[in-house]
Amino acid sequence: MNTPTKIAAVFQQRLTDIANDTEAALDRLLGPDSRTGERARPAHLMEAMRYSTLGGGKRFRPFLVVESAALFDVPRERAILVGAALECIHCYSLVHDDLPAMDNDDLRRGRPTAHKKFDEATAILSGDGLLTLAFDILSRPEVHPDAAVRIELVSSLAINAGLGGMVGGQMLDLAAEGRFGDGKPQPLKQNEIETLQAMKTGALLRYACIAGAMLGSADKTQRAALERYGAVLGEAFQIADDLLDVEGDAATVGKAIGKDAGMQKGTLVSLLGLDGAKQRLAARVTEAEESLAPFGERGEVLKAAARFVAERKA
Amino acid sequence: MNTPTKIAAVFQQRLTDIANDTEAALDRLLGPDSRTGERARPAHLMEAMRYSTLGGGKRFRPFLVVESAALFDVPRERAILVGAALECIHCYSLVHDDLPAMDNDDLRRGRPTAHKKFDEATAILSGDGLLTLAFDILSRPEVHPDAAVRIELVSSLAINAGLGGMVGGQMLDLAAEGRFGDGKPQPLKQNEIETLQAMKTGALLRYACIAGAMLGSADKTQRAALERYGAVLGEAFQIADDLLDVEGDAATVGKAIGKDAGMQKGTLVSLLGLDGAKQRLAARVTEAEESLAPFGERGEVLKAAARFVAERKA
Repeated sequence: MNTPTKIAAVFQQRLTDIANDTEAALDRLLGPDSRTGERARPAHLMEAMRYSTLGGGKRFRPFLVVESAALFDVPRERAILVGAALECIHCYSLVHDDLPAMDNDDLRRGRPTAHKKFDEATAILSGDGLLTLAFDILSRPEVHPDAAVRIELVSSLAINAGLGGMVGGQMLDLAAEGRFGDGKPQPLKQNEIETLQAMKTGALLRYACIAGAMLGSADKTQRAALERYGAVLGEAFQIADDLLDVEGDAATVGKAIGKDAGMQKGTLVSLLGLDGAKQRLAARVTEAEESLAPFGERGEVLKAAARFVAERKA
Repeated sequence: MNTPTKIAAVFQQRLTDIANDTEAALDRLLGPDSRTGERARPAHLMEAMRYSTLGGGKRFRPFLVVESAALFDVPRERAILVGAALECIHCYSLVHDDLPAMDNDDLRRGRPTAHKKFDEATAILSGDGLLTLAFDILSRPEVHPDAAVRIELVSSLAINAGLGGMVGGQMLDLAAEGRFGDGKPQPLKQNEIETLQAMKTGALLRYACIAGAMLGSADKTQRAALERYGAVLGEAFQIADDLLDVEGDAATVGKAIGKDAGMQKGTLVSLLGLDGAKQRLAARVTEAEESLAPFGERGEVLKAAARFVAERKA
């Protein structure tokens, strides 16, 4: 039996390895060589797309894809490609959310945001390019030999990243900040916060876990288990994020903190209090661990990931 | 044998019919009902996405998909869905290109642009939502029962709409206007203009014709013919656009004209002169007509479309 300390070490090693492999894949995918059907890859746009995807990030979403897929012995390079596609979506959303017209952030992962490093037009277009590239990647035969699996990956990503998922969640978030109508922040009820967070942050995390099941041709029970794990993990992730906004340190977190309180929009921390939010976070971690029961010992690394999400400081 | 006048009337009727069917499909796809896997469809975002896709436009790209597919007796409702997906891409690109940080246009099809009607954040997110929705649509079984065909449609759209296609073309266009570096417009050489236009405008028009071939399981010769037709049609389309910018009437065109000259970026009109550009346009139309030879009389409506592109006033 593995000790918790040993599992935590294995988790950290896997997280590092997968981050490195994802970085290498993105570096290749965003390389100078044109793909068949492309006319040219404009250097300035390429540079901006590389700036926003390479050289940073925990690559937690790719980690979830690769580790979920590993439960079914999926060839690692396939899962890395799906992880890279998902990271393109995640990174594009950060570039667009940081824009002056949106969250107006100057700092991201301790570096200037894309529109600060380049300019607004380049930032907008580089986001559009990354969003489009994600679907290019998922459509490649290297992702899976069966076209039916690839199209399922495309369909689910589009649904989770679009108006009923991530993009819709960002819209709800801006509305809660009072950006529309009378211009006043709209303090949300608990169920409204849960919907917003499930869309804005949860949808991609859930997709990461489902994608692993899709790649692995999981049966119904296994797939439901990973879907449940992904959903609960997403909730834990967001509560931890809200706690960091209150208790975190800007230098460690790598972006501006205390913004939620300034915005007066509701979070689970403002509704439940610090202790209430922490209790809820602990409950979600337990639930995430329990959802992995069908996988026995093979689920240990994903269980450690749930604990990591709750304990992270950045 | 059909007379040219009769063919022109058939073309106009088909264009109208396909526009109506595309409008109906988009109205349904952007309806209030959540799709399986979606949590909710935020009303404000939906409204903005509907504003930018419904109620206007010639729907020329869907027309090309439907008429190319009709050469192979593809069920019309399948081609309409692909046309609707393509229209989502076209409309998102207009919304983002109109933004203050990009072309800064207030008027589009005679109506306020999305960021004028709503606000910049909503415009950006509605564009992201439309781009994502295009891939959701293409992944649906209603598009084609064979997943291999659907994934080919996804792959080709991503390549033609992304950094090596439409988005890259818009970046080249902004660069030519002198938006980067020393801030001075960069008058382009003829081959650079051709690359820019093939990416910015040509890629989606070519895709429309290839998509019809994909839906129809065209053989190699047929597919090459439609690819050639789409490419040449794209060139004709862009020359006509540049001519309209010089000779057109703002009220008829429905957007600001004379912008190219003001920007001092090169166009084929500024390089070849009015007469030279018109000669080139006529040559492209002839080439487009000739490329359809493998389809005999069935190609007549697409031939009429090439003539329409050259003669349009808006």
